[in-house]
Amino acid sequence: MIVARISEGGREQWARVEGSVALVSEQPLTLAETAAAGDGMLARSIPLTDVTLLAPLLPDTKILCVGLNYRDHVAETGRELLSHPVVFTRYPDSFVGPGAPIVVPAVSHQLDYEAELAVVIGTGGRAIPAERALDHVLGYTLLNDGSVRDFQRHTSQFTPGKNFPESGSIGPWIVSRDTVGALGPQAITLTLGGERLQSSTLDQLIFGVPELIAYVSTFTALRPGDIIATGTPGGVGSVREPRRWMTPGEEVVVAIDGLGELRNPIVAETPAA
Amino acid sequence: MIVARISEGGREQWARVEGSVALVSEQPLTLAETAAAGDGMLARSIPLTDVTLLAPLLPDTKILCVGLNYRDHVAETGRELLSHPVVFTRYPDSFVGPGAPIVVPAVSHQLDYEAELAVVIGTGGRAIPAERALDHVLGYTLLNDGSVRDFQRHTSQFTPGKNFPESGSIGPWIVSRDTVGALGPQAITLTLGGERLQSSTLDQLIFGVPELIAYVSTFTALRPGDIIATGTPGGVGSVREPRRWMTPGEEVVVAIDGLGELRNPIVAETPAA
Repeated sequence: MIVARISEGGREQWARVEGSVALVSEQPLTLAETAAAGDGMLARSIPLTDVTLLAPLLPDTKILCVGLNYRDHVAETGRELLSHPVVFTRYPDSFVGPGAPIVVPAVSHQLDYEAELAVVIGTGGRAIPAERALDHVLGYTLLNDGSVRDFQRHTSQFTPGKNFPESGSIGPWIVSRDTVGALGPQAITLTLGGERLQSSTLDQLIFGVPELIAYVSTFTALRPGDIIATGTPGGVGSVREPRRWMTPGEEVVVAIDGLGELRNPIVAETPAA
Repeated sequence: MIVARISEGGREQWARVEGSVALVSEQPLTLAETAAAGDGMLARSIPLTDVTLLAPLLPDTKILCVGLNYRDHVAETGRELLSHPVVFTRYPDSFVGPGAPIVVPAVSHQLDYEAELAVVIGTGGRAIPAERALDHVLGYTLLNDGSVRDFQRHTSQFTPGKNFPESGSIGPWIVSRDTVGALGPQAITLTLGGERLQSSTLDQLIFGVPELIAYVSTFTALRPGDIIATGTPGGVGSVREPRRWMTPGEEVVVAIDGLGELRNPIVAETPAA
């Protein structure tokens, strides 16, 4: 099953995607209701060509991002493996949806890419044990954790570099956990300007999805629709020689087996009038 | 002028506080509308004794917190002065309002206090110059940036220790900028269990309110109602000998001249059923 956030004629809502159509209810449904709805409730069918897919989140969605969670990425940054996940947050307005432009800010050209698997919570909770954590997963989506590296390194805290408006992307949709199946051998890749820059598999994660849900839910209550970005593999631009940034005019593509592709053009910020 | 978030008979709304009454509109107004409303629009008067004051925020409020921003607090943590503010984020559900219990989590007893001045944005914006930043301030409130120190130190990122549910407090209301006047000599104090543990003045801030607004708005768009917590003075519990934590049964009080007091009892987390 695939659930998407769509815009049609200016109206934004959750929809189920089946083949070439989006199925919606006459009454607005929540994400969880849309995922659970019987076919009879999703009576209206809209051709996908008539809708815009949006970032699958809302203004109050918690987006918890995990850093340094692939062995090769930890090695390339010169850090050591940690006993706890590194967790920071991003605001929803730091992401665009599929196809929408990612914006290089006026104040920095150091906008790095980070291909990631993102987990979407279906059933909320607090202090969720790892053994039951997958029962709380609605599904998975793709995420580009676009990072303004100089601002990320102003101090110990990553917040500034991780929150520039429209500096990352998420989508194109949420593929349900049963459709994806067990995580493990799936390939995760990132391609920028036609060049393959990241390539790994999901079994290279240091902290797996159950452990991340257990840890995060220890210190914050998860709600349906909340998102955990699981970290990026090696190959980011800031540790390459020469360094490699997302540059206006290029296209960036995140892909994970079974989830599809997240494609975004890169543009420069338009100066304020 | 004083604006508060109130609950009356289960209905939550913004109100103006004048003397012993809360003035509200028949139609729900936003925070900015409530602050700007002429007296004729706020026709209904409710005795303050009939309302509960809530945390002055909404589920999608951005709460940007600044660390290490008083000279004596930087010294007591053994760190050096930085060229940029240290910025992390808290989720709205990590705060309770005035009078509501602050919760010591089941997984840690190391819940520290941090008295802070919080700035509430009135007019949103991005890349706001410091010279014009105060024009974007609606007013100020009090904040206790309750911090679970062991979780804060799991990794480089403060997120886990700063986001436990109901681990901090904010309020009791927003006092408008013109009512507060220029910041400077006002005293800021924190008292726990009757013991004065923090005492400083607002002119000890390293980065002032205009500089913080300018920096934060460089990397994220500020909206009306968004909050910047400006950091805490010296005297926190984790650097005392012996260490001093917020403990169930105590009361904690943050006070700043001209803003009033923020009082909260401390309770232990109730184990999940």
